[in-house]
Amino acid sequence: MSRLSTALLGGTGVVGQRLAELLARHPWFKLKAVYAGKTAGLKYQEVKWHSEPPAEVADLEVLRLEDFNGGYDVVFSALPSEVAGRAEEHAAEAGCAVFSNASSHRMDPDVPLVVPEVNPEHLELITAQRKLRGWSGLIATDPNCTTVGLVMALKPIASEYRIRAVRVATLQAASGAGYPGVPSLDLIDNAIPYIPGEEEKIAREARKILGELDGGRVKEADIRVEAACNRVPVLDGHLECVFIETEEPVSPDHVMDLLREFRGLPQELKLPTAPDQPIVVLEHQDRPQPRLDRGAGSPPGMSITVGRVRRGSSAASLLLTLLVHNTIRGAAGCALLLAELAAEMGWLS
Amino acid sequence: MSRLSTALLGGTGVVGQRLAELLARHPWFKLKAVYAGKTAGLKYQEVKWHSEPPAEVADLEVLRLEDFNGGYDVVFSALPSEVAGRAEEHAAEAGCAVFSNASSHRMDPDVPLVVPEVNPEHLELITAQRKLRGWSGLIATDPNCTTVGLVMALKPIASEYRIRAVRVATLQAASGAGYPGVPSLDLIDNAIPYIPGEEEKIAREARKILGELDGGRVKEADIRVEAACNRVPVLDGHLECVFIETEEPVSPDHVMDLLREFRGLPQELKLPTAPDQPIVVLEHQDRPQPRLDRGAGSPPGMSITVGRVRRGSSAASLLLTLLVHNTIRGAAGCALLLAELAAEMGWLS
Amino acid sequence: MSRLSTALLGGTGVVGQRLAELLARHPWFKLKAVYAGKTAGLKYQEVKWHSEPPAEVADLEVLRLEDFNGGYDVVFSALPSEVAGRAEEHAAEAGCAVFSNASSHRMDPDVPLVVPEVNPEHLELITAQRKLRGWSGLIATDPNCTTVGLVMALKPIASEYRIRAVRVATLQAASGAGYPGVPSLDLIDNAIPYIPGEEEKIAREARKILGELDGGRVKEADIRVEAACNRVPVLDGHLECVFIETEEPVSPDHVMDLLREFRGLPQELKLPTAPDQPIVVLEHQDRPQPRLDRGAGSPPGMSITVGRVRRGSSAASLLLTLLVHNTIRGAAGCALLLAELAAEMGWLS
Amino acid sequence: MSRLSTALLGGTGVVGQRLAELLARHPWFKLKAVYAGKTAGLKYQEVKWHSEPPAEVADLEVLRLEDFNGGYDVVFSALPSEVAGRAEEHAAEAGCAVFSNASSHRMDPDVPLVVPEVNPEHLELITAQRKLRGWSGLIATDPNCTTVGLVMALKPIASEYRIRAVRVATLQAASGAGYPGVPSLDLIDNAIPYIPGEEEKIAREARKILGELDGGRVKEADIRVEAACNRVPVLDGHLECVFIETEEPVSPDHVMDLLREFRGLPQELKLPTAPDQPIVVLEHQDRPQPRLDRGAGSPPGMSITVGRVRRGSSAASLLLTLLVHNTIRGAAGCALLLAELAAEMGWLS
Repeated sequence: MSRLSTALLGGTGVVGQRLAELLARHPWFKLKAVYAGKTAGLKYQEVKWHSEPPAEVADLEVLRLEDFNGGYDVVFSALPSEVAGRAEEHAAEAGCAVFSNASSHRMDPDVPLVVPEVNPEHLELITAQRKLRGWSGLIATDPNCTTVGLVMALKPIASEYRIRAVRVATLQAASGAGYPGVPSLDLIDNAIPYIPGEEEKIAREARKILGELDGGRVKEADIRVEAACNRVPVLDGHLECVFIETEEPVSPDHVMDLLREFRGLPQELKLPTAPDQPIVVLEHQDRPQPRLDRGAGSPPGMSITVGRVRRGSSAASLLLTLLVHNTIRGAAGCALLLAELAAEMGWLS
Repeated sequence: MSRLSTALLGGTGVVGQRLAELLARHPWFKLKAVYAGKTAGLKYQEVKWHSEPPAEVADLEVLRLEDFNGGYDVVFSALPSEVAGRAEEHAAEAGCAVFSNASSHRMDPDVPLVVPEVNPEHLELITAQRKLRGWSGLIATDPNCTTVGLVMALKPIASEYRIRAVRVATLQAASGAGYPGVPSLDLIDNAIPYIPGEEEKIAREARKILGELDGGRVKEADIRVEAACNRVPVLDGHLECVFIETEEPVSPDHVMDLLREFRGLPQELKLPTAPDQPIVVLEHQDRPQPRLDRGAGSPPGMSITVGRVRRGSSAASLLLTLLVHNTIRGAAGCALLLAELAAEMGWLS
Repeated sequence: MSRLSTALLGGTGVVGQRLAELLARHPWFKLKAVYAGKTAGLKYQEVKWHSEPPAEVADLEVLRLEDFNGGYDVVFSALPSEVAGRAEEHAAEAGCAVFSNASSHRMDPDVPLVVPEVNPEHLELITAQRKLRGWSGLIATDPNCTTVGLVMALKPIASEYRIRAVRVATLQAASGAGYPGVPSLDLIDNAIPYIPGEEEKIAREARKILGELDGGRVKEADIRVEAACNRVPVLDGHLECVFIETEEPVSPDHVMDLLREFRGLPQELKLPTAPDQPIVVLEHQDRPQPRLDRGAGSPPGMSITVGRVRRGSSAASLLLTLLVHNTIRGAAGCALLLAELAAEMGWLS
Repeated sequence: MSRLSTALLGGTGVVGQRLAELLARHPWFKLKAVYAGKTAGLKYQEVKWHSEPPAEVADLEVLRLEDFNGGYDVVFSALPSEVAGRAEEHAAEAGCAVFSNASSHRMDPDVPLVVPEVNPEHLELITAQRKLRGWSGLIATDPNCTTVGLVMALKPIASEYRIRAVRVATLQAASGAGYPGVPSLDLIDNAIPYIPGEEEKIAREARKILGELDGGRVKEADIRVEAACNRVPVLDGHLECVFIETEEPVSPDHVMDLLREFRGLPQELKLPTAPDQPIVVLEHQDRPQPRLDRGAGSPPGMSITVGRVRRGSSAASLLLTLLVHNTIRGAAGCALLLAELAAEMGWLS
């Protein structure tokens, strides 16, 4: 097929640039336009890049977000949440299929919040969304970067054990705050025990994603989720220490098998951006480490890594540590995989 | 009174140097000798210092640990645990009062493991210890640096609430691994999700410290403790994210009051190294931060700081973040305060 | 005497806060007002502080720079250079003695650019300045932070050797870029070999400061100065590797003596902020180091440290490494010492 | 041809591992054995790796260096200099062609010290070496990592200008100190202005490499070289600020052309590890930066990058900043390219 005409809203931030890289040679989507705020008017390669700008799109002119007026099959949104909400609705009204990394619509009851390996069936919400909003387009969202890693690890466990409570403490990379993001003066010889809004997002998004589709809406999972989020002096890769309580006794060895063997619909459909193995289990007790493991999977950064799976203080208590590349699997790559899934499932036609 | 004659075993490591600094102008203890392994024969100021060597002890010759033969009122031990056990026993046999930062004897049933504000009454174990071992001296220990911060925060809460379970995830500073400790190649742009032995120490030491003295021995507290420990690129100051489950509903505001108002026996006795306020509660939601808050209290680093006290996912669930200066309150300062307490309570005579 | 009424323009930045700290308990100057841009209206303690706000000024309301209208004996300016020029002229017109850390007026022929130990006699330019501009006030400036350290080390050498050329390569701390300054994403696992405008400033400011007063104006020193400036992941403290060519053979030992024995007018006058020893010579070959040595002197950070004084590839070639605390001796402390000097020399009456 | 049988001495250090990676799929050399000190007996993949161990050699058993007894066509040495000297002589006596990254033999008059693009003709020293030492094998060396970058940038300039003096100040990465190398406690929020032996190596090695072969020996270049070396908190990539004095006026634009167009014998011979363009000239004034540019070239890390080429304080003065990947182009890759060059020039037969 000829590639779908694609636009990128918010293409100049940290996540937008990752999307551009992943889209540069994509077999299904052709990036035709990049929209942004302050840098409109520059060539795409002239904005501040955090890696080499991909040659395929280096010469695109950055367009003004206000001038966006639809006309694309697919729209990716990496906009800041202050402006994302309205712009994405506008795009969906104009008939575009919008895949968003912004938080604005994630918790709307008629908007799917999806990690493709975890809850692909939630895309069914689009039916209600189109009916309710009268759109020919659609909005589908991916979760907060930290949530992505968490629900990927929980899903295979939840398939065999009833999870009662999850506590997660995170060590999050600087790139999660965007650019310029966290000043050096705040992060040299330091860590910051607070990330605005993050803990609430993890709790409510995880419950929605792990919830069940029930009569055209999602019934949230009945799992207690508590989070404590910290920023650390690391470039990329969020580390998450997870304490899991189950209803019944849980075996760490069995859980490691479940994680290793976990495959989802993207793997089954052999989607272009789907890693063969979504979860890589590491056996060295000092892994995963952000710098060593954030590039796991193929495309690099699309697999999460899990280590230190161990029993807690009771038979129904399990601890593990996971790592998710926050701007790839946790953001750009997740949105792209979601678009591929929606395309393959027929939602774009 | 004239100052008590004091020796320092393992005086050249990170904790040993902190002890020397704190002892340099101490009103009760006079540091007369420093014993160490490889650097014996050098002047104390000639070993690798991590700050300025205190003038009072700069010219002491570092003595060989093998040549230690007692003859001091007080002995502080900051030895590596491989050699600490036997050396400390030897000192106690020789009639010295040994205050140890090493892990070797912490869990011995007849050895007090004490944070002076938390469980001063456990020093009573010395009676049994002397009887059992036939010593005129004694061994008393302080806990692992991470445990010190944890039990200090838990104690005032436990005074009003029954704590059922504690999960703690830590972000620990490089100095906790000693010197040379963690190579730069392992910690630049990275975090390490594992610290050998640390998680087990936290669990078992916290239960002993919070336990009750019962007929000459300690009955461990019936609290589930789970820990996940991480090393981060920070010089000093361990950050701990604590998830607490109580039996009954818990009020964050009430807990903040309890923490703020907490005072222990060292404060009552006005011990020289006791901070006026053992726990400083910070109200900015992005605090405590290691670099900004590790020097809290007077002497600097002797108070822990606590922030982000908040309700979890149920009424009986509480979250907070604490910071403990690992080499001061968590080690050298804690040992020194313990010695002061023991002296004041009459155990040294 | 009663303390001089003092205002601080640009008091909320990194250097402004250092000035406030140094002024908090100053015997001669009383800080009465703080002016700033965006944060006007807040209490001073409510702006983002990089250390604890001094209690003496914590409750001052931050005033709008546009509302500044003179009425102070002394004005310190830590304004960004875009707005400093006009505001400082305005203050001098209004009769204030302005001591500025901004670059706007440094190279004006009638404005003294002074490091108090190095060229106090340049204050004489004020006579011409007042005549030319018709002011009752005055403007005097201190140099760029890197230049301060450089000319302090060169001055005693220049007193005995004719210096032909100076090449300096710097490793500059993040705080030199202000706050928010350098993003973490640019400085983790990285260094940046460029600081806008810095190299030119070093060359021309050093030549002015080391120049001679000649008939009411400064004749620049005939020294070739070349600089290469780099940003490194350090909080405070600029390290400078200096290659010096002299006309005649130079002895490292002699130079070390010259540096150690160097005293200036501030020491002679016993100014409150003058360190006893402006230059501390370190003998360990791996010093000075930013974290260990930036606090040298009293007040802390007011002395520079010099180490590794050694011969180069010819008898008339000398190398050394120096460290200057960029926000204290290199900025806030230098401006304050300059004001003390001007006061003591009678320029304020 | 069938691949040459190859051994790696000192294969478990930082440079040794890089060599193993580069050799893993090498078309000419087949890595058959790895020798090391303390880790002998382990499988190669079981030693501490700083990246993924290459599958081709993961199962090799690490052999004891003392058991090395020749029997290979080619031997790479990444041994510490304390043991390298004798071991390499032993290998050359045994008929092996030894390519060494150690400093032991670099300054021997009959041992070539070669950067393949810069002074390939120096391999001719092997004739004298074999005669003198009676070896059928040979020893050829590559220089210190910092020197490699420096002489690569100087060579094309020296081809058109007479260079009188070179001053270089470096910001060197932690990996240059090997593993464990620099402790985190020494490098967080810090820089160290001293690297033992490094400055002397740069001066004397650069003069030898840029020297001319004259009657079977190298006549050192008559260039004054001065160096000031610093360690900074960066993983890989040494940054060098270079001040160059020439006899005649020098044009930065011309120099940039010379650097860009520079090609050597490895490029002409299309050696497998030769980058197409040995020197990449960057035009953004804030480049090169270690993290962004250390991977330049193909294979990644084999090109040096140069930026900020600018005039100094006179017409015959030039400044530039260069970056060399210290463990690849500066060490492992340089040794490998040297072996390829020697093989292609017929020295191995």
